[in-house]
Amino acid sequence: MEYPSKLIEDAVNEVAKLPGIGRKTALRLVLHLVKENENRTTLLTDALRNLRSNIRFCRICHTISDSDECSICRSHRRDRSIVCVVEESQDMMAIENTSQYSGLYHVLGGVISPMNGVGPHELKIETLVGRIDKAAGEIKEVILALSPTMEGDTTAFYLNKKINHFPITISSIARGIPVGGDLEYADEVTLGRSITGRTLFN
Amino acid sequence: MEYPSKLIEDAVNEVAKLPGIGRKTALRLVLHLVKENENRTTLLTDALRNLRSNIRFCRICHTISDSDECSICRSHRRDRSIVCVVEESQDMMAIENTSQYSGLYHVLGGVISPMNGVGPHELKIETLVGRIDKAAGEIKEVILALSPTMEGDTTAFYLNKKINHFPITISSIARGIPVGGDLEYADEVTLGRSITGRTLFN
Repeated sequence: MEYPSKLIEDAVNEVAKLPGIGRKTALRLVLHLVKENENRTTLLTDALRNLRSNIRFCRICHTISDSDECSICRSHRRDRSIVCVVEESQDMMAIENTSQYSGLYHVLGGVISPMNGVGPHELKIETLVGRIDKAAGEIKEVILALSPTMEGDTTAFYLNKKINHFPITISSIARGIPVGGDLEYADEVTLGRSITGRTLFN
Repeated sequence: MEYPSKLIEDAVNEVAKLPGIGRKTALRLVLHLVKENENRTTLLTDALRNLRSNIRFCRICHTISDSDECSICRSHRRDRSIVCVVEESQDMMAIENTSQYSGLYHVLGGVISPMNGVGPHELKIETLVGRIDKAAGEIKEVILALSPTMEGDTTAFYLNKKINHFPITISSIARGIPVGGDLEYADEVTLGRSITGRTLFN
């Protein structure tokens, strides 16, 4: 597509680099900003720039944070005997949103994926082992909350091998039929896992 | 949803104000920028700011442009006897993309919509009348390429009333079955229009 202005083209090129945003959507967003008050664009770009230059990562659990230690790692109200291992900060936010978990977290920063050039050393695995080692008995359980994909399973397997010599319980989040999901539409693997991983009825 | 950082929250709030972007998508885009090199964010915000502060509107056809007169209005290769009236600059880009039209354009900046507080005076209607009046005989045809909605039809009706005393042909883009579209799935109004607006077979 040809654009009537080089400024529009440059902006579309940059916006279209964002994940899930095609050139048509990018054009729509850019033209929206042109129609709006200039102040809107300033607020947007300031927020993004401010975020990118001031964002920190928690030195303990590696989640994104305003400071060098996140509010969860600093909190005295959290159960320090459980650590939930997740891939990314957004997984942690999703679990926090359920209000069903009060322990600590550890953000790996991805999963082992040789196809994408991600090995165990690109992930925050050593620091997890270090945390468990240092806490010496304080940590009683590690929950693996990774994606149910080949990469997620590989990572879980690797992690298990790395930490199963510690006196801790290693668990994995339940796989099964989603709440509100229909049995007959579930795929076989999920349905199979929901049978083998069945729980007692009350 | 709670965010682990005020910076993330501010950025999500701003991004989610864009049309068609919800808070979940906004979070995904923002976290993508956090993961990428800081340079990416700078390129994006610079392009948007540069666009918003330097964009101009053509003083003749009102499309977005790099300068005070757009490349189409300046061009000597365009047919100056036809003016195509569209709602927004993106409609003009879409028509340009077809390579089927070589005339001029006029961008209204919207359609008459009393519900949204848009009356004829909010649109670039007076300048269109002025253009036709000033060109005195040079402009032979005005094509109305407006949305087939109640607002679009109202605007077309109003425009027709404003310019039909000039010695020009006023036409409207064809309504009918889209190319590749299936007859049986077309709505009745479209199918009806395709019958009444039938064209000679070669």
